[in-house]
Amino acid sequence: MSNPKIMVVNGPNMNLLGTREPEIYGSDTLANIENRLSQCAHDHALDIDFRQSNYEGELVTWVQEACQSFSGIIINPAAYTHTSVAILDALKACKIPVIELHLSNPYARERFRRRSLISPVVTGVICGFGAQGYELALTTMAKLVKG
Amino acid sequence: MSNPKIMVVNGPNMNLLGTREPEIYGSDTLANIENRLSQCAHDHALDIDFRQSNYEGELVTWVQEACQSFSGIIINPAAYTHTSVAILDALKACKIPVIELHLSNPYARERFRRRSLISPVVTGVICGFGAQGYELALTTMAKLVKG
Amino acid sequence: MSNPKIMVVNGPNMNLLGTREPEIYGSDTLANIENRLSQCAHDHALDIDFRQSNYEGELVTWVQEACQSFSGIIINPAAYTHTSVAILDALKACKIPVIELHLSNPYARERFRRRSLISPVVTGVICGFGAQGYELALTTMAKLVKG
Amino acid sequence: MSNPKIMVVNGPNMNLLGTREPEIYGSDTLANIENRLSQCAHDHALDIDFRQSNYEGELVTWVQEACQSFSGIIINPAAYTHTSVAILDALKACKIPVIELHLSNPYARERFRRRSLISPVVTGVICGFGAQGYELALTTMAKLVKG
Amino acid sequence: MSNPKIMVVNGPNMNLLGTREPEIYGSDTLANIENRLSQCAHDHALDIDFRQSNYEGELVTWVQEACQSFSGIIINPAAYTHTSVAILDALKACKIPVIELHLSNPYARERFRRRSLISPVVTGVICGFGAQGYELALTTMAKLVKG
Amino acid sequence: MSNPKIMVVNGPNMNLLGTREPEIYGSDTLANIENRLSQCAHDHALDIDFRQSNYEGELVTWVQEACQSFSGIIINPAAYTHTSVAILDALKACKIPVIELHLSNPYARERFRRRSLISPVVTGVICGFGAQGYELALTTMAKLVKG
Amino acid sequence: MSNPKIMVVNGPNMNLLGTREPEIYGSDTLANIENRLSQCAHDHALDIDFRQSNYEGELVTWVQEACQSFSGIIINPAAYTHTSVAILDALKACKIPVIELHLSNPYARERFRRRSLISPVVTGVICGFGAQGYELALTTMAKLVKG
Amino acid sequence: MSNPKIMVVNGPNMNLLGTREPEIYGSDTLANIENRLSQCAHDHALDIDFRQSNYEGELVTWVQEACQSFSGIIINPAAYTHTSVAILDALKACKIPVIELHLSNPYARERFRRRSLISPVVTGVICGFGAQGYELALTTMAKLVKG
Amino acid sequence: MSNPKIMVVNGPNMNLLGTREPEIYGSDTLANIENRLSQCAHDHALDIDFRQSNYEGELVTWVQEACQSFSGIIINPAAYTHTSVAILDALKACKIPVIELHLSNPYARERFRRRSLISPVVTGVICGFGAQGYELALTTMAKLVKG
Amino acid sequence: MSNPKIMVVNGPNMNLLGTREPEIYGSDTLANIENRLSQCAHDHALDIDFRQSNYEGELVTWVQEACQSFSGIIINPAAYTHTSVAILDALKACKIPVIELHLSNPYARERFRRRSLISPVVTGVICGFGAQGYELALTTMAKLVKG
Amino acid sequence: MSNPKIMVVNGPNMNLLGTREPEIYGSDTLANIENRLSQCAHDHALDIDFRQSNYEGELVTWVQEACQSFSGIIINPAAYTHTSVAILDALKACKIPVIELHLSNPYARERFRRRSLISPVVTGVICGFGAQGYELALTTMAKLVKG
Amino acid sequence: MSNPKIMVVNGPNMNLLGTREPEIYGSDTLANIENRLSQCAHDHALDIDFRQSNYEGELVTWVQEACQSFSGIIINPAAYTHTSVAILDALKACKIPVIELHLSNPYARERFRRRSLISPVVTGVICGFGAQGYELALTTMAKLVKG
Repeated sequence: MSNPKIMVVNGPNMNLLGTREPEIYGSDTLANIENRLSQCAHDHALDIDFRQSNYEGELVTWVQEACQSFSGIIINPAAYTHTSVAILDALKACKIPVIELHLSNPYARERFRRRSLISPVVTGVICGFGAQGYELALTTMAKLVKG
Repeated sequence: MSNPKIMVVNGPNMNLLGTREPEIYGSDTLANIENRLSQCAHDHALDIDFRQSNYEGELVTWVQEACQSFSGIIINPAAYTHTSVAILDALKACKIPVIELHLSNPYARERFRRRSLISPVVTGVICGFGAQGYELALTTMAKLVKG
Repeated sequence: MSNPKIMVVNGPNMNLLGTREPEIYGSDTLANIENRLSQCAHDHALDIDFRQSNYEGELVTWVQEACQSFSGIIINPAAYTHTSVAILDALKACKIPVIELHLSNPYARERFRRRSLISPVVTGVICGFGAQGYELALTTMAKLVKG
Repeated sequence: MSNPKIMVVNGPNMNLLGTREPEIYGSDTLANIENRLSQCAHDHALDIDFRQSNYEGELVTWVQEACQSFSGIIINPAAYTHTSVAILDALKACKIPVIELHLSNPYARERFRRRSLISPVVTGVICGFGAQGYELALTTMAKLVKG
Repeated sequence: MSNPKIMVVNGPNMNLLGTREPEIYGSDTLANIENRLSQCAHDHALDIDFRQSNYEGELVTWVQEACQSFSGIIINPAAYTHTSVAILDALKACKIPVIELHLSNPYARERFRRRSLISPVVTGVICGFGAQGYELALTTMAKLVKG
Repeated sequence: MSNPKIMVVNGPNMNLLGTREPEIYGSDTLANIENRLSQCAHDHALDIDFRQSNYEGELVTWVQEACQSFSGIIINPAAYTHTSVAILDALKACKIPVIELHLSNPYARERFRRRSLISPVVTGVICGFGAQGYELALTTMAKLVKG
Repeated sequence: MSNPKIMVVNGPNMNLLGTREPEIYGSDTLANIENRLSQCAHDHALDIDFRQSNYEGELVTWVQEACQSFSGIIINPAAYTHTSVAILDALKACKIPVIELHLSNPYARERFRRRSLISPVVTGVICGFGAQGYELALTTMAKLVKG
Repeated sequence: MSNPKIMVVNGPNMNLLGTREPEIYGSDTLANIENRLSQCAHDHALDIDFRQSNYEGELVTWVQEACQSFSGIIINPAAYTHTSVAILDALKACKIPVIELHLSNPYARERFRRRSLISPVVTGVICGFGAQGYELALTTMAKLVKG
Repeated sequence: MSNPKIMVVNGPNMNLLGTREPEIYGSDTLANIENRLSQCAHDHALDIDFRQSNYEGELVTWVQEACQSFSGIIINPAAYTHTSVAILDALKACKIPVIELHLSNPYARERFRRRSLISPVVTGVICGFGAQGYELALTTMAKLVKG
Repeated sequence: MSNPKIMVVNGPNMNLLGTREPEIYGSDTLANIENRLSQCAHDHALDIDFRQSNYEGELVTWVQEACQSFSGIIINPAAYTHTSVAILDALKACKIPVIELHLSNPYARERFRRRSLISPVVTGVICGFGAQGYELALTTMAKLVKG
Repeated sequence: MSNPKIMVVNGPNMNLLGTREPEIYGSDTLANIENRLSQCAHDHALDIDFRQSNYEGELVTWVQEACQSFSGIIINPAAYTHTSVAILDALKACKIPVIELHLSNPYARERFRRRSLISPVVTGVICGFGAQGYELALTTMAKLVKG
Repeated sequence: MSNPKIMVVNGPNMNLLGTREPEIYGSDTLANIENRLSQCAHDHALDIDFRQSNYEGELVTWVQEACQSFSGIIINPAAYTHTSVAILDALKACKIPVIELHLSNPYARERFRRRSLISPVVTGVICGFGAQGYELALTTMAKLVKG
């Protein structure tokens, strides 16, 4: 029997991770994170599909796909956290667990970063723990999808 | 002589119609609606071009195209209703009739859904009548384009 | 068997129609509209009762009456759209379909006209199509009351 | 010597009591309430004049009348609670005790129902106790008018 | 040749003038004011029609009448100054001069009295001069209607 | 069989009653009120437990206690009315009737006193009737706990 | 016995009158107005001292001077109407009548022109009647200073 | 060598856990949680000190104590999340890691629960995962205090 | 004859003084300050009672005590400056001079620190002068209590 | 060696001191204050330069001058406290101590007086102690400039 | 040695230039502008890469690319100026000079156009000079990249 | 034939340039800038009149003068950018090109610096390029005045 599949969705500029504002986001690259997270997924008998896009429309499409054929979503919508009703609407249609993830603590930054449009429709939120937040989220997801 | 062409533009997550939150949006799929609308267009001697996209940029491009070579636009911008200045700007450049359409009554929902960025530049608005709103809009458009 | 009865309720200053700001509201008088609408009602096998008042209290009373002995309400509350909690409360008690109608597109006008107190409790809204909006509303109502 | 007269003023849609939204307002009709209140008035040696109107202007006129020839006012302005400066102005001119009454607890309902224009000028407020609030208000009024 | 007719419209609670809050509004009654104003009208070869109502709907109707068969309107909308879009709409349809009048200086009172809905559509505003403001307004109107 | 127990909870500075700002709160002391209320409780076959604290935490603890072993709560949270989410949360967990009481009419005072955090979760509110409001509240509570 | 002295104070850019935005302010120059006003003053047995300054500080100084040795102030603070607490403070110290005057109707213009800082402390306001507002104000002032 | 000590601080009404609004907070009691968390601490070679208080002042004192002699703080300030500047100030003085924890997802609840005063000064936030959030937080803390 | 007694009340976290954020609050401890202030009190023939609490309720109780048996209050409410209506209410009942004191200049810090709830009811405010502000406040108080 | 020079800058209408609203500002004139302050300066071995202007521009110029050749500034900007970004900018360029002074307690007055534009850039603020605030400020300044 | 490369990024609907609202944006097409700008770049020994997209995601990607391999960015984000946190985040990661450019003066248009999300992170802003603004920006950029 | 004259108007504190906050405004003095700008003006066959004042009233007067006898205005209103309706009104009366100039990028500074009162009435805005912005503005002005 196959492992439950978890989609890990990363929003705009996350591809710059490790180079963009390292004092806020740390020096890990997205590839480093994906590698460590694959190991972590293996440990929890989960499969992960790790993606990144700068396009709101593509993120919407991926969330739709995940809702139909995955067991859980870990989403770091980056800038679209604060502006995308479209991602919110895609998530509202989901019946599976969704964890919202941020590397930094948005409450400690600019005012407009304090409002997340998607928080009201996710299962839970994890933020401020840097790159290790991904493993923390996946560990949590393992419990949510396995009961 | 060819029929006037009407572009029917559907925004993000409309492709989920019939599955997403049916208590709000009903159980008709977008394909069902397109079929019935084609029949209705035929009755009014109109041609329709029925589209859907999750990408704001693609919707902007389609509106530009419609303004140049169609006779009218029926647009249900879904989530972008509330956030897209780009679609607003594309519509402002239009000289043809534009009908804004919503399946649900956005005024009966969350607060942020009450503000439509595009309402100030459209000809008129129809909302709250579910899938049959499309036929209602096309009937209205028939009068607008034929005088 | 008698036809379903639809009350068409018009708010303050609608009696001036055809003379007041014709660049916004058009040159049709309320009597013209009633005549055309009667024909339209006949076509849909509906009976209409077409009324106008400048008094908020009278409009409240009419809505109460409609809720008890009519099959649907088409209401253009004009100025009271933006200020009347009393009409809102009367409509909230209704079990029948209610269509909110505006000749002009209020979203393209002064800011305070963008807020309708009653929109959250009506079935749907039609606005911006001028006098022909009445026939559009009645056609829609026909579907709503007949299933 | 005649009993002190108390005017009990009911605002718009109160005539629907018992039929409108019974889960909020209860199933007592206004007539039931008046009957019980008359008995209660008799017990306190008060005369009551129990009125209802959907017209803001009529309510203003009644308040003016009460201020000139009654000993106290119990007023449930219903929807006008939130919108009527005219009733506020009429009450400001009063030298007699005024009790503001609401069947439901407006603070537990929609946001706009939380602001009462008249509260700043009344003697006191009683709300949330349903139909029995009338007798409670009259009992209180008895103490206010008799010292 | 008959004199130009000026309608002088007084809003809710103005019938209490001379008794209501005399420290704000003075001790003149509305009848006193009408008498003096009639003399003043005579001096300016104007006819006045002096009215008062507590009903917003009646005030709307009078403004409509004035716009059709009078030469000018002096209006003291009292409480409706701050709440009536309906009177605003009636005045917007007027082609004749309109003077907004207040006995007291509303800017020196409660915050909500500082916003007049009708000020943006009147010719000019006079406030703060008590009962003599009526004669001042009529003198001004005489110039406006006679050029 | 023992009488139903009602906890009467008084918030900060209520111990000053009779000395603090008597023009607002009257000259009765809390002890006077408790005495009269005990008599009133006796008349209604209720037992009261009358308490006062300046500590938000103690008030929270008392409300918790009341919810578990009393039949009703009459609470005058004084200053904490406007600032305590903790008391709100304690009251939300209650299944028994709760009456919010204020000696003065907070709507006639400073702006920040107009917002009560707890009003949305209480059964009803009584305010503006001074020290006699306690007896009024207890009489009302008697009906609520006895049906 | 000398005539009562009235200071007529004009704020910034009023020296441009007749050339600046004549569609709003008319084509009269300040000199024309002063001439006509001198005649009007003579008719009312008043002396006027007519001044204009672009400096807020100079206007403050003049108001101080007027309060000490004049019988009344007619002030058109122009742009400083909306920004000067200093002029407000100078006027608050006045015991003499003060009339605030505007040529245009500020309520019909940009939003920020709707707030006058000084209105709460003046006797009354006259606006919207163009250059003839000065004579209207002086006529009113004559009554105020002569009783 | 002794284990690092982690203080786990619980705010008002957390003692009700398992009885208060179980549909939001779950049916685990605080004692259950403490037991499981002790095991989890043992696994991570940490010592925990698990506390609860309804008093803001006591929570402040505990945070001060933790900052001086503990290695990390996990804090669920409950209602004080939204109102306590005092706890914020105590936390600002901390040099050790602080994790803010909520059982429910506050972003999915009442509006005022969306603002956490302490979020800007904590290391990270975990919310929405119910009672298991405690173990999740402790696991995270283990990484933070051990590098 | 005994010296006038002055209560010096310090709010939450002031016990950390000298260790908490020294770049804002300086390195003096509360004990240092009390010592120097005692000397200063002696010089002015005043007695001081110097207290600190993290509990809002205790501060309320102390203010009540001071109002009854002290000659003046110097209060540094720290975090409660911005949130405590209870302390405000306790101070409002005071007939003695009250000086509000802050070590730092709150206007140069976070936005929420700019609003002091108690400022409207104190005699005066001194802020921004660090620990020496206490002696400044006591010197000022000496003048206030001795005339 | 010469004494340190302190500029004492007074804003608009301060020249009226002793006559303007004595119930708020006291009956001392500015000359009285200057005299007493000179004596106080002498006691502290300071030289003062005491100035007043109604012109914002002049105050800006004086602040610039003080920053270049004085040792400290005591400034009571009066009305410009609330409106002058120009004085704020001049003060921001200062390296010397600046004390903001108000005779009255602005927090106890109109709402707009609660915001001081300059508070964020001054060393400290003293308000509410009337004319003796000047000596208090100078005593404080003596400590600031002498270490 | 190659010339410094400047990316010129144009946002949504800029492809309509010359046809869309020419009274606001002028009649130059984007191709015309690119041609003239190439000549200007040649004069300054710069290379330009001139792009346009309707997709926010594509603009983000281009900005990322420019930050890595170009010497400067001139960006006219059009509609996304007001809504795109994603472009803001991409620009924040840039170490090269960025000039924000608008053809029209957004401050003279609709209110929502006055807020640019990206202005806080760009080097400078040029707006209101129509198509010639591009050359102006490039001339400025030449100085910025060459020192 | 004489050269077109351009007035370059500098607001309050600009005379401090080179000394005030050099990290924001650079180390060029106003005299340096004027010298370089004169050379630049010579190159473009323009005459410049370079002025600075701390007085709002003087700036108003200069703008009036420029509008009557100059060909263009470059204005850096400094602090008055954010507060002066008087300068706005003076500029509104201008028929000649006006360029608003800021050395720093106000959008990257305090919030209140983001709103320019004059931006809606100028031709265009240039900001963020330091002292060289003057030459940039003059180059642009040359094109505007010469076509």
